Amino acid sequence: MAILGIDIGGTKTIVGVYADGTLRKKTRVGYDPSRPPLDYLNAILDAARRVLAEAGIPVPKTVGIGCGGPLDRRNGCVVAAPNLPGWDNLPLTAIFAKEFNAPAYLDNDATAAALGELTFGAGRGIENFVYFTVSTGIGGGIVIGGTIYRGSGDNAAEFGHHKIEIDGPPCTCGDRGCLESLASGKSIARRAREAVLELSSDNRPSWADDLDGVTAELIAKEAARGEPLASRVWRESMTYLGIGVSNVISILNPELVIIGGGVAKAGDLMFEPVRETVCQRTMRPLADNVRIVPAALGDDVGVMGAVALAMDEELSAK
Amino acid sequence: MAILGIDIGGTKTIVGVYADGTLRKKTRVGYDPSRPPLDYLNAILDAARRVLAEAGIPVPKTVGIGCGGPLDRRNGCVVAAPNLPGWDNLPLTAIFAKEFNAPAYLDNDATAAALGELTFGAGRGIENFVYFTVSTGIGGGIVIGGTIYRGSGDNAAEFGHHKIEIDGPPCTCGDRGCLESLASGKSIARRAREAVLELSSDNRPSWADDLDGVTAELIAKEAARGEPLASRVWRESMTYLGIGVSNVISILNPELVIIGGGVAKAGDLMFEPVRETVCQRTMRPLADNVRIVPAALGDDVGVMGAVALAMDEELSAK
Repeated sequence: MAILGIDIGGTKTIVGVYADGTLRKKTRVGYDPSRPPLDYLNAILDAARRVLAEAGIPVPKTVGIGCGGPLDRRNGCVVAAPNLPGWDNLPLTAIFAKEFNAPAYLDNDATAAALGELTFGAGRGIENFVYFTVSTGIGGGIVIGGTIYRGSGDNAAEFGHHKIEIDGPPCTCGDRGCLESLASGKSIARRAREAVLELSSDNRPSWADDLDGVTAELIAKEAARGEPLASRVWRESMTYLGIGVSNVISILNPELVIIGGGVAKAGDLMFEPVRETVCQRTMRPLADNVRIVPAALGDDVGVMGAVALAMDEELSAK
Repeated sequence: MAILGIDIGGTKTIVGVYADGTLRKKTRVGYDPSRPPLDYLNAILDAARRVLAEAGIPVPKTVGIGCGGPLDRRNGCVVAAPNLPGWDNLPLTAIFAKEFNAPAYLDNDATAAALGELTFGAGRGIENFVYFTVSTGIGGGIVIGGTIYRGSGDNAAEFGHHKIEIDGPPCTCGDRGCLESLASGKSIARRAREAVLELSSDNRPSWADDLDGVTAELIAKEAARGEPLASRVWRESMTYLGIGVSNVISILNPELVIIGGGVAKAGDLMFEPVRETVCQRTMRPLADNVRIVPAALGDDVGVMGAVALAMDEELSAK
């Protein structure tokens, strides 16, 4: 009963084998934008063969793939993933099904992660919850009545692309003022660089010496030790994120909000200001009714989500 | 098989009797804020007795009540409706059930209206749709899988209180930058008055002579005939509304958005710019997949929603 789970991202892919109720093996494949696009796919296939061999599994029962959208889930194709240039119209499930001689399923990575938390994590037994992934971009998943809700065209839960500032900064989606353009890892780093450039060069903090190397992780670290500029950028970012979470709460009235993804690794440094913003800026009965917690699966939420996706699709197929 | 439907609002209440598949009688009760709060309730009870008598119905089978929130739906009480001062903790369903000797059900007026469109209107046979009511305030209803979705605390679909401008104007809910604070009937009138006051007195349009009498309806009328200031305020308002609709589409990926309420009476003057904003500012697959239409029940959406609520609750009780 082994399942191959694959979490494809714009900077890395995690490939894992789930068997006997546990993630038996996993490995990481880095993305190198300087190489031809399909090298990344081949490296992922290699890694999958390797983890299966290491786990002593000749053929998986099924394959689950989480990947950044937009996707054509029903046909198992990438449609136009901005973070995976050269992958447009790539028939991912067909490629994996043929390679591993098993049914393969594809879904948005944040939808898969929500399924992971529903099946194995903080969402077990919860009727209505939402999942936010906050990493390079911002994605989401919605669980209603204990099952995933995908909307009428499989594109629900684009939390990162709802607008919180009507004339805000440009977003990767082509619009502006989206939550992602203000609170994603990439946007936190961009806003930090912009804040540095507003200062005269002798007033700049030491973390700004290598401006190109500024990341959200660095800003979180500097904010944690109290550096004033990083603290301001981080606090503003968490207010934006809190407003985004508040908006989803006002629309869906979930009993639980789970937040995962790279930026969520900041822990209390993220959760405390997000909870504070939600508490201050959401109508009383909605705010009183909701808990905001980290993904219980931590770093494995993506790959376990891909596993949960395969399990869920196999169940639905029956 | 007669149903008494009651749509209670902050300026008027519509009371109707539904029997033999049609709204047989209806009447309107105006709200007079200068009278004691319970006079309004007594006038509604009187009107209900009158329409039942006129329809020749001694006892209704059931009573449905739509009312502005927040409500305690399960206990049939108004909790704290900002537009109904003095009604806090009023046990509405108990009062109506006793008076008419029939089970009575209470829900948020926008939820009831969504049920009305699902049962009798533009939402018939639609799996996933959302309903916006745009009148004095802005409310909403969500239908998922062909049934109403209320969230984990009966407070889902507070579309009017999600934020589209993080530091926007104050809202009736106590926060700021909510969709309602920018695009509701009350906010359109307020923003029009503010726009007038920015002009020197000899540059003001004639509709501004009686500033206190400015309403969203007047602004729509003046915009329709091309008066420049009203046109600008109206266009900005419809952009705000379009952003709010776009946000709900990004989160829920519905196949249909139905818009009702007083402001929606402007017709194409509202629907055209809202559709344009949604088209321009929503990710392609989400925007391509959705239709935006007026409430098919028009002015009767509230009272027919109350009727549909009673029908739905009776069905669920079985």
